[in-house]
Amino acid sequence: MEQIGRRIWAIPEGHIPSRSVNEEHALISHEAASFLNATNEVAEVALTLFFTDREPAGPYRVKVPARRTLHLRFNDLTDPEPVPRDTDYATLIASSVPIVVQYTRQDTRHPAIALISTIAFASDC
Amino acid sequence: MEQIGRRIWAIPEGHIPSRSVNEEHALISHEAASFLNATNEVAEVALTLFFTDREPAGPYRVKVPARRTLHLRFNDLTDPEPVPRDTDYATLIASSVPIVVQYTRQDTRHPAIALISTIAFASDC
Amino acid sequence: MEQIGRRIWAIPEGHIPSRSVNEEHALISHEAASFLNATNEVAEVALTLFFTDREPAGPYRVKVPARRTLHLRFNDLTDPEPVPRDTDYATLIASSVPIVVQYTRQDTRHPAIALISTIAFASDC
Amino acid sequence: MEQIGRRIWAIPEGHIPSRSVNEEHALISHEAASFLNATNEVAEVALTLFFTDREPAGPYRVKVPARRTLHLRFNDLTDPEPVPRDTDYATLIASSVPIVVQYTRQDTRHPAIALISTIAFASDC
Repeated sequence: MEQIGRRIWAIPEGHIPSRSVNEEHALISHEAASFLNATNEVAEVALTLFFTDREPAGPYRVKVPARRTLHLRFNDLTDPEPVPRDTDYATLIASSVPIVVQYTRQDTRHPAIALISTIAFASDC
Repeated sequence: MEQIGRRIWAIPEGHIPSRSVNEEHALISHEAASFLNATNEVAEVALTLFFTDREPAGPYRVKVPARRTLHLRFNDLTDPEPVPRDTDYATLIASSVPIVVQYTRQDTRHPAIALISTIAFASDC
Repeated sequence: MEQIGRRIWAIPEGHIPSRSVNEEHALISHEAASFLNATNEVAEVALTLFFTDREPAGPYRVKVPARRTLHLRFNDLTDPEPVPRDTDYATLIASSVPIVVQYTRQDTRHPAIALISTIAFASDC
Repeated sequence: MEQIGRRIWAIPEGHIPSRSVNEEHALISHEAASFLNATNEVAEVALTLFFTDREPAGPYRVKVPARRTLHLRFNDLTDPEPVPRDTDYATLIASSVPIVVQYTRQDTRHPAIALISTIAFASDC
């Protein structure tokens, strides 16, 4: 299988609206990082969250098995602490093996769904 | 003509909503990968889909003729198997010649159209 | 002034909806390429459009003066031929000096505005 | 902590709609640049705005403390001059230390929220 990816990634934009017009799980306002681990080894991933006016939180640790994807909702992170809502943050991601990372926000504060997505920024090494 | 592109690409985000408020083809919920082949040779493209809890599916094979674009809907893939709806997946793309790849999702679960798009992540080689 | 940019860019996704619920210029369905020329020389830019089933169209030629931006609507291109509506296309961009290119689509087929945007893909040289 | 980032960034797309259907601060039409400074030094950031038919404006100067994020609304810039509404512009960003930059626009001219976001374009150095 073709290898692709980097070990360090960043997502400067982060902000989870506390409101949703619909509480169905698929339609709630949320942010997600999608990880592709196309390698044959488990990816040990550590996320650090940066804020405007306090020291960073984390690391938050997740595993992505070999040849798997994980679409991680920031809303679901609780250890070492929940991600505050209605608060600006940014994310630094470090993985034990090369992965690819994409960021997505679904904003359902209004009846229509608003979506954004971008490949995250990868370091050179 | 100027040459541009890479041979290996990745799209970590993938999720086709099963619902659409409008069944008109142009307005149905879908995901697409757009390929630009600016070379003078046909691009033999192989897509592999990664999931959360099973082995990858594929390869799905498509051709992009020389000096052509192909906007491929994941909804239309059937061989070796259809892409499951309402399911997280990720995509690895390998091409025989350099191409450029962009990802787009149209979500029409609600009356208003929600769109996302990003250039996919290219490997260095 | 800091220098930034590349000479060759690609946008695989292209599709201008023929419909808009509002014919006000700002709200009509359109696609645009935004160019930043941060150099001290005029950028002579040539766009070539690729299609699914015919030879490429172009070059379409525009100039971006030194230290200026140009937000070009594909809807406004007419020479050598208009950009067909409701048709898949892709764009290759070549500039005489380094520039930066971003792609945006505004889809107003429905009363709510849908927007997508991404930095285009840059060649290495 | 892992280091990531570049010193020069560009955002070709810029356009702040003057209209919003809702004047609540969170829902007003705006554009933002989100900065992640994962280094242990303060980032001295200078923004220069480029226009279609006049010389560039700026520099606008902001600081991002060590290990902090700043989500800067272009709407809030006033020194040396406000950012004109309903006007095409582009942004060049120079930082004293490596940072990561993401661009976001929220368009609320219509009752539904439209959002776009992309990692900005980084120079090689």
